[in-house]
Amino acid sequence: MVRALFDLRSVAVIGASGNPHKLGYTIVQNLVQYHFRGAIYPISLHAQTILGIKTYTRVSEVPRDIDLAVIAVPGEAVPPVLRECVRKAIPLVIVISAGFKESGESGASREQELREIIAGSSTRLLGPNCLGLIDAASSLNASFAASFPAYEPISFISQSGALGTSFLDWIGTNHIGLHYFVSLGNKADLDENYFLERLRDDRLIACYLEDIKDGRRFLQLGQQYNCRRPAIVLKAGRSEVAAEAIRSHTGALAGGYPLTKAALQQYGYIVVETIGDLFHTLKAFAWLPLPTFNRVAIVSNAGGAAVVASDTLIEKGLELADLSPATQDVLRQLLPRTASIHNPVDVIGDALSERYLQAMETVLQEEDVSSLLVILTPQVMTEIEKTAAYIGAMKKHGKPIVAAFIGGTLVEKGLKLLAEKKVPAYHFPETAIDVLAAMTWYAGYRQRTAYNLPTPPLKSPYYEQHHAAIDELYQQARALNLSSLPQTSVDEIARRYHIAIPESYVCRQVDQAVLCVRSSIGYPCVLKIVAPTLLHRSDIGAVITSINNEIELREAYYRLEALMREHQIVDGAICVQKYVAGGIPLIVGATRDDNFGTILLFGSGGIYAELLGDVVRRVAPLERGAMLDMILETHIAPILKGVRGQQPIDLQRIIDILTAIQYLMQDYDFIQSIDINPLLASPQNICAVDIKIALHPQCETPL
Amino acid sequence: MVRALFDLRSVAVIGASGNPHKLGYTIVQNLVQYHFRGAIYPISLHAQTILGIKTYTRVSEVPRDIDLAVIAVPGEAVPPVLRECVRKAIPLVIVISAGFKESGESGASREQELREIIAGSSTRLLGPNCLGLIDAASSLNASFAASFPAYEPISFISQSGALGTSFLDWIGTNHIGLHYFVSLGNKADLDENYFLERLRDDRLIACYLEDIKDGRRFLQLGQQYNCRRPAIVLKAGRSEVAAEAIRSHTGALAGGYPLTKAALQQYGYIVVETIGDLFHTLKAFAWLPLPTFNRVAIVSNAGGAAVVASDTLIEKGLELADLSPATQDVLRQLLPRTASIHNPVDVIGDALSERYLQAMETVLQEEDVSSLLVILTPQVMTEIEKTAAYIGAMKKHGKPIVAAFIGGTLVEKGLKLLAEKKVPAYHFPETAIDVLAAMTWYAGYRQRTAYNLPTPPLKSPYYEQHHAAIDELYQQARALNLSSLPQTSVDEIARRYHIAIPESYVCRQVDQAVLCVRSSIGYPCVLKIVAPTLLHRSDIGAVITSINNEIELREAYYRLEALMREHQIVDGAICVQKYVAGGIPLIVGATRDDNFGTILLFGSGGIYAELLGDVVRRVAPLERGAMLDMILETHIAPILKGVRGQQPIDLQRIIDILTAIQYLMQDYDFIQSIDINPLLASPQNICAVDIKIALHPQCETPL
Repeated sequence: MVRALFDLRSVAVIGASGNPHKLGYTIVQNLVQYHFRGAIYPISLHAQTILGIKTYTRVSEVPRDIDLAVIAVPGEAVPPVLRECVRKAIPLVIVISAGFKESGESGASREQELREIIAGSSTRLLGPNCLGLIDAASSLNASFAASFPAYEPISFISQSGALGTSFLDWIGTNHIGLHYFVSLGNKADLDENYFLERLRDDRLIACYLEDIKDGRRFLQLGQQYNCRRPAIVLKAGRSEVAAEAIRSHTGALAGGYPLTKAALQQYGYIVVETIGDLFHTLKAFAWLPLPTFNRVAIVSNAGGAAVVASDTLIEKGLELADLSPATQDVLRQLLPRTASIHNPVDVIGDALSERYLQAMETVLQEEDVSSLLVILTPQVMTEIEKTAAYIGAMKKHGKPIVAAFIGGTLVEKGLKLLAEKKVPAYHFPETAIDVLAAMTWYAGYRQRTAYNLPTPPLKSPYYEQHHAAIDELYQQARALNLSSLPQTSVDEIARRYHIAIPESYVCRQVDQAVLCVRSSIGYPCVLKIVAPTLLHRSDIGAVITSINNEIELREAYYRLEALMREHQIVDGAICVQKYVAGGIPLIVGATRDDNFGTILLFGSGGIYAELLGDVVRRVAPLERGAMLDMILETHIAPILKGVRGQQPIDLQRIIDILTAIQYLMQDYDFIQSIDINPLLASPQNICAVDIKIALHPQCETPL
Repeated sequence: MVRALFDLRSVAVIGASGNPHKLGYTIVQNLVQYHFRGAIYPISLHAQTILGIKTYTRVSEVPRDIDLAVIAVPGEAVPPVLRECVRKAIPLVIVISAGFKESGESGASREQELREIIAGSSTRLLGPNCLGLIDAASSLNASFAASFPAYEPISFISQSGALGTSFLDWIGTNHIGLHYFVSLGNKADLDENYFLERLRDDRLIACYLEDIKDGRRFLQLGQQYNCRRPAIVLKAGRSEVAAEAIRSHTGALAGGYPLTKAALQQYGYIVVETIGDLFHTLKAFAWLPLPTFNRVAIVSNAGGAAVVASDTLIEKGLELADLSPATQDVLRQLLPRTASIHNPVDVIGDALSERYLQAMETVLQEEDVSSLLVILTPQVMTEIEKTAAYIGAMKKHGKPIVAAFIGGTLVEKGLKLLAEKKVPAYHFPETAIDVLAAMTWYAGYRQRTAYNLPTPPLKSPYYEQHHAAIDELYQQARALNLSSLPQTSVDEIARRYHIAIPESYVCRQVDQAVLCVRSSIGYPCVLKIVAPTLLHRSDIGAVITSINNEIELREAYYRLEALMREHQIVDGAICVQKYVAGGIPLIVGATRDDNFGTILLFGSGGIYAELLGDVVRRVAPLERGAMLDMILETHIAPILKGVRGQQPIDLQRIIDILTAIQYLMQDYDFIQSIDINPLLASPQNICAVDIKIALHPQCETPL
């Protein structure tokens, strides 16, 4: 298989044409024009020769082996042609033709047909509905893209062919080379993972993806290769609301694009969100060394622009480097009196290129400077091109340098010169800062320890002792056809996995509730309906808090009874619970994502959980160190650590809860999700006030 | 004064030079080269003539009136020269020279000297340390900027001269004209407000500002003119932490850049945050009609790019327009079968310009479409220039149209052509979307009712009855030299202004506390230290909540007594307070900002207030409708309105509290800030659990 992709010696173009307005012509032309080194076999029913090359009417007629077939016949005609390719044992077929999944139901079934045709054969398929493939190392342009990059070990995998044409035009203009350009099309067979793995030795990978076909594998590939070479991902469709993601709080918070982004970043993918970011970031990674940390120096001939750039820089999580007294002394001697010798360094408006050079040389020697942003405005005496040349020369320092030449026609030549020197340069500083931020993020990823290595999920230490009892609880719920575990079962599971819950009792009648409170729980207390079918209790007012005395308790009990009748909750019971006073409401949860596997979630809970969105998601399994990082990433973290004389919360005890949840997810496949909201955390006490465990709909038998 | 600025018939250049490398030469040259219509008087000690123009050695020698003097002598030499200008009664003087406030203490005192020289005279001063001024309507380039724009009624007021040179280069390249370019420099005399007022009849204003000199006036000018013409503001220095803003919670939340942004937007300024946004937004406003609402159509030959653009569009608060069945029918007939006839409309990769034209014509006739984004990728058959020409022709529909031609060299000509047709066009869709979002925001501002008109702050209805008592409380605090009012005074003021507070008593000894709780407050209760000098009580643990019985109460009392000894709180007392159970913690506050006046603040309170930053700020005075809008803008608003079967909070009662606070701020100048945090809001009860009133440091006598 690998041979087929990386050692292509012969290409057949099926649907080749002598008409220059047809794709079947363009593809043959692209093979010829860009000097494909192997044999070209145009397959055509009409033409005798195309561009002077002898044609065949079908691949079976070709007397030699074919390594690659490119199909450009109408969609309806693809299946029989593909069948012939399989018979000929062509290892790789690219289906350029449209008219498949993207064009409705009949197209989708035709696409299924393609899959069936290649099933069990040695033929792999790229597309359908794609632009094709370019392998610059083999001078192979098996696409209808009208350009061809120089070779560089950089690849672009795109689920949009059109974006590919923009990309090829853009990298050509920016003197960036390429190894592979792959247009994935509908991904009927080969997908991003196939290419990510095979292109692992490239220096840089960029992907445009509309869906990730096998999320777990994608993460695994990230795990394996992203520490060696950057992979930039633009994932489209982030405003889509995943319909199945609203099954539970954690589900709503864990799913969709935020989850994808968190998962990809966890495994070292550089996630960008616009086309401009994709292109700009790729350029920066292609041209620059990685920064060693996040401290940036700015050298500018415009104080105002430097101030605005500093604002942006800080917002993006970067920091202004500190210049040492020694560095400042040097700058003081080199620069005029009115210049700023602090960072941002203002060489002021009348700076000639020499002054820029001196300032850059000085700050780049400063230890605290890990990267440099040079800003230029075209003032009367500004030497735009000479300054650009000097900036290029500064690459010798081995630190990343980006530039912003702000203006129009005047700065154009400077920008061109910088591109030739491989300095990422832009019209505006914010673009330069965005790419520095992306590089700094990635450099940080590489430096972080590999605590989040996925270890094979073994059964937890609790499993042996408790699984019989817990499986029994599950069987009971299954027998009742419930979608989530009843409160009593949840409580029992929590106790077995050492998750602290408030003292509570299910009561069959009001006097029993009164007795429970009088003898054990005490006032104030909480009364609530527990029912497997009742997901969001507060939706119908089924939780009554701060009951202060027996009169209120009885009243509350009758109100809940009435509520159950009103909402026809036949499987419900009333539960009296100790009121847990104070504490910071947190949300802790886990859910099983179809694509990425088990997701852990932690954040601000209570009523704030969904609205303020202060949650952090991670793909399990996580070690305790990674769980701590997860907790520290939330906005609520400083409060947990104790602000203003408050005693801190013991974060290790929160990590215990996260660990228990992770154990439960790995021990019992029947659990679809676990939600603890709120987990009330105070210095004295950590208590899971409300836990929900939803069952996996497809899980027929417990493991 | 206005005459001087807008009818300049004679200009003197002081420090004029015959040396082409000196600013004093460039300025004379700029006047000559760009055909200034009036008299030019170079003032020089050395040259007899400059560029063929007779020189004078001093302004007093010039035999006629001088309307404008431009000073370009070294900083030290400016004061005597300015004195001569004043004697000659020159109405406007531009001081180009540097060496003032920007260069340390001696410079600052020299700048003060300039102010003193013009004080009481008819001379006004622009600068020092500026680039000068361009008035394209009068062909006046009184600056050292090496370019001159064509005339258009658009002005740019910049506190950075350097950015001005970038701007002039950029608008030249983009065929945008200008009326005034003003480089404000150090603003020793004339500032942004002076020019904003006088340039009020321009069609569009852009400002780059590092500080706003008179915020109240700036807002007033916004109030007067921003409904007629857009004013774009880039305010630099937003990462600065205002040192004085940490005096209270509200202070910390209300001050700095977030306040400036909120205030400016409240008064209709279009706030941008990067240089690129400033330039791009200006172009869009210069070239496009305003959208009538926020519904955008996308026409693209690349599905992927359209999806990413849709993502960005939705994130920026815009919406995808719905295409009616009729419109879809038309598109179905016009476009190939595999095209998308929904929005985003995908004309697919092989679209020639005619297909783009048909799609654009169709969607622009759709009522639900208020603006159009056209995306183009350079595919084999794409007619880039013809498509650009057709896009330009679409302006006839009177709806704003922006374009993104994604690529490199191939799309360059298309982008140029679009600029000529005055269609804002970019390499990437996100830029186009940013400008559409800014225009849509501004169009919305114009449509909103003028509920937030500032009315002159009169005394409130409560003033007459209560001011004697409240003034008395203030006098007592003053006598003790306190920085904020003691708890007992705060409670009394709250009662007088109908702000509900929890029942509480200051106790002198533990038995008194026990008695209060037993006879009136009940358990659970709260015990806290009240002391004027203790600002953040929880910093030292001076609040003990959830005291459930007498033993706990006594224990808590002794603990607080010990705490007072430990922290040497001599002015403190212990206060027992009813425990307010449940309720959503909110923050409501007001503070007096030096620049913008009274600021009202509302948001999520409690421990979340500062961390989650869910607060909305407004410049007072506000009417109740504007207060409601303010409340609805927070993330917490949906919870207040009642989610999931919860009863809603009566927002009118929150507005009552905001109104009471606004009254207090306008009734008593001695109040610097009021903080209510938390205000606990439940359907049954709205209660200000903790109120702080800080005193104005400079307020010697109460009003």
